[in-house]
Amino acid sequence: MSKANDPALKSWVEVPANSDFPIQNLPFGIFSHGSELPHVGIAIGDHVLDITILSRGSDLLKGTGIDSAVLGKGTLNALFALGRAAVTQLREAISELLAADNPQLRDDADLRKRVLLPQSEATMHMPVFVRDYTDFYSSIEHATNVGKMFRDPANALLPNWRHLPVGYHGRASSIVVSGTDIQRPSGQTKPNADEPPVYGPSRLLDFELEMAFICGQGTELGNRIAVDDAENHIAGMVLFNDWSARDIQKWEYVPLGPFLGKSFASSISPWVVTLDALEPFRLAGPTQEPQVLPYLQSSDPANFDIQLEVYIQPEGGEPHQVCASNFRYMYWSMRQQLAHHTVNGCNFNAGDMCASGTISGHTPDSYGSMLELSWRGSKPLDMPDGSQRKFIQDGDTVIMKGFCEKDGLRIGFGEVRGKVLPAQP
Amino acid sequence: MSKANDPALKSWVEVPANSDFPIQNLPFGIFSHGSELPHVGIAIGDHVLDITILSRGSDLLKGTGIDSAVLGKGTLNALFALGRAAVTQLREAISELLAADNPQLRDDADLRKRVLLPQSEATMHMPVFVRDYTDFYSSIEHATNVGKMFRDPANALLPNWRHLPVGYHGRASSIVVSGTDIQRPSGQTKPNADEPPVYGPSRLLDFELEMAFICGQGTELGNRIAVDDAENHIAGMVLFNDWSARDIQKWEYVPLGPFLGKSFASSISPWVVTLDALEPFRLAGPTQEPQVLPYLQSSDPANFDIQLEVYIQPEGGEPHQVCASNFRYMYWSMRQQLAHHTVNGCNFNAGDMCASGTISGHTPDSYGSMLELSWRGSKPLDMPDGSQRKFIQDGDTVIMKGFCEKDGLRIGFGEVRGKVLPAQP
Repeated sequence: MSKANDPALKSWVEVPANSDFPIQNLPFGIFSHGSELPHVGIAIGDHVLDITILSRGSDLLKGTGIDSAVLGKGTLNALFALGRAAVTQLREAISELLAADNPQLRDDADLRKRVLLPQSEATMHMPVFVRDYTDFYSSIEHATNVGKMFRDPANALLPNWRHLPVGYHGRASSIVVSGTDIQRPSGQTKPNADEPPVYGPSRLLDFELEMAFICGQGTELGNRIAVDDAENHIAGMVLFNDWSARDIQKWEYVPLGPFLGKSFASSISPWVVTLDALEPFRLAGPTQEPQVLPYLQSSDPANFDIQLEVYIQPEGGEPHQVCASNFRYMYWSMRQQLAHHTVNGCNFNAGDMCASGTISGHTPDSYGSMLELSWRGSKPLDMPDGSQRKFIQDGDTVIMKGFCEKDGLRIGFGEVRGKVLPAQP
Repeated sequence: MSKANDPALKSWVEVPANSDFPIQNLPFGIFSHGSELPHVGIAIGDHVLDITILSRGSDLLKGTGIDSAVLGKGTLNALFALGRAAVTQLREAISELLAADNPQLRDDADLRKRVLLPQSEATMHMPVFVRDYTDFYSSIEHATNVGKMFRDPANALLPNWRHLPVGYHGRASSIVVSGTDIQRPSGQTKPNADEPPVYGPSRLLDFELEMAFICGQGTELGNRIAVDDAENHIAGMVLFNDWSARDIQKWEYVPLGPFLGKSFASSISPWVVTLDALEPFRLAGPTQEPQVLPYLQSSDPANFDIQLEVYIQPEGGEPHQVCASNFRYMYWSMRQQLAHHTVNGCNFNAGDMCASGTISGHTPDSYGSMLELSWRGSKPLDMPDGSQRKFIQDGDTVIMKGFCEKDGLRIGFGEVRGKVLPAQP
């Protein structure tokens, strides 16, 4: 076990009980304060450690050998492009620096004042520039639920589903950071089978509870990433809300897949949690039957035990939890997704994002979308204020949280939230 | 008519008869010479005019008001982001400069030597950084052919096809410039319905004859582009070969659309031909029946008469033409595609690319893919060397050409070519 993961490790920075960001986490993000340009930070407790100023204004990160220009960018792409070993070394160096017994920064009041900022004063930005974004469909419970609703309940899974991680390319430009308002999309739908399609605001706006991994070191066109090497190309993970307009999607998606029903927005949490920090929560995924082809086989446990929650907060109301799921339910692992994605020679760049697909569990309260939770609107959810939800209403804020917990150690992702505004007139 | 489009206009640069690049064209590209960094050029006859050096080393482009930094970039994104009016003005300024009766550059032997380079000595690069790439499916002949082969010959078109331009997000990272070799992709296929899937090199490698438009001035998330304003957001067009592995595609694409069967590579021609240069070849597209929804209606002719040709050149052999088609067959216009794509608020950035989908005509020799030309392999094409082609073989080079011709004026795209190399072992 890396010393940085030692559950007994304490920081001289005060970390509130139950914080998502103890010294064992140290996720990377891009933030700004006041009129500053966005730059690199790490979350510790309720604070942000300013990595850009730390690397420019002191020698404390010199040992990592990482150029301060890389640590002064407005995205994490250049850092992640250095590869997993470099990011691991940086996290460990920062862990040492923040450890309770290390006086270097702790006792330098002047520098400390310049590099430690309350998160409440920081504005978070997109952590990476996403050039390419792929959305998988890797929860067997979700794929089965959708197949039951829209295809054949007796043959809910399509024939290819257990043989390869089904996925599709998504729109990268409309991925936004948590806190960005989401405008209800308009588009073409066909509410009545016997009548022509109509134009107007989507009436069936939904969330999808997902997580996404962010590519670290990229590849050249024509090269593959082997399944057992794939995690070396993953810089970290974020929470991902794949907003979906079900009525637009239903009318447009045959035969070429989701398009405008998805491309109006996707929201991500701002802090990129490294696989290093998640290591204590590694576990085996579901048994894959039939056995997958050799290029998708890996021996070690490849999933992670990450608890996931979704809340709906009506305008002026309190957040109400509507779902509790877990990333461990994923049938296909991230390393299988990446190995499959590159088996044809498709190239990756640092910052590329791959989302999991909706993460649904076994029970109705663990389903990761309103489509499933309300079973196509046939079972509306009761809200504390007496209202009901089949889908998402204007003014609703959707909040997703994710965290790992074991033996007193909590590694969290913070949250991704987005408020739905009415459609543009 | 803009003076730059006057068919009688001549340049002091010698332009060979039948050149794709007379003074009435002036397409933009990114090139390098020797050890130079890639930078901005314009094609004129068999030469490249070095716009970067011209703007840095002289005052001849000062009148455009375009910052020489924008004209010195390694991509055209910054130039195109300025919007259509700026690009129009730049093309017209260069037209004036190259006109036979203009002595400014013509009689400055020293400067002329520094800014005029034979195209044979130039290396062409990707003209833009493509952040997001969308592939449409807008040829009714192609969609009908595919529907007949794989679905129901009596109902070849799906119900949504005549109501909206069907499209999907594609992989941007694997778009390469003409001349780049294409490695045959490997992947998962299911050659026998009764047996499990297998892994190996694609056996059904195909081209798709397409064109693509490149976005100029972008939009903010939540904003739409009206159909009649759409051409102001289009910087120009290129030829586009959407390489396709039919066997990989067939097994993977239900229900979320094409993925690894496409993402191994797409090839584009290097010179971006502006809509200004294409203006003399504007014409009406096919009649749309039933009438489309108002947000897709535009009154002016919205298509262009662009002749398209595909050649297969076997290893060591000569190019053999296998297809003659035309962009005018497109059922959905570019302006409809862009209006539809943004109707949900999806944002665009300069350099984003939208491909047309395979452009097939009415007759069997005008089909834009081997899938259609050989009708799923049932009608192999005879090659001059006595061999046959159902799909593309290792060593084959696929060449696509495009040009407009009328009243002695020819506006061409040059070509996009790619040679297929064997799969990685």
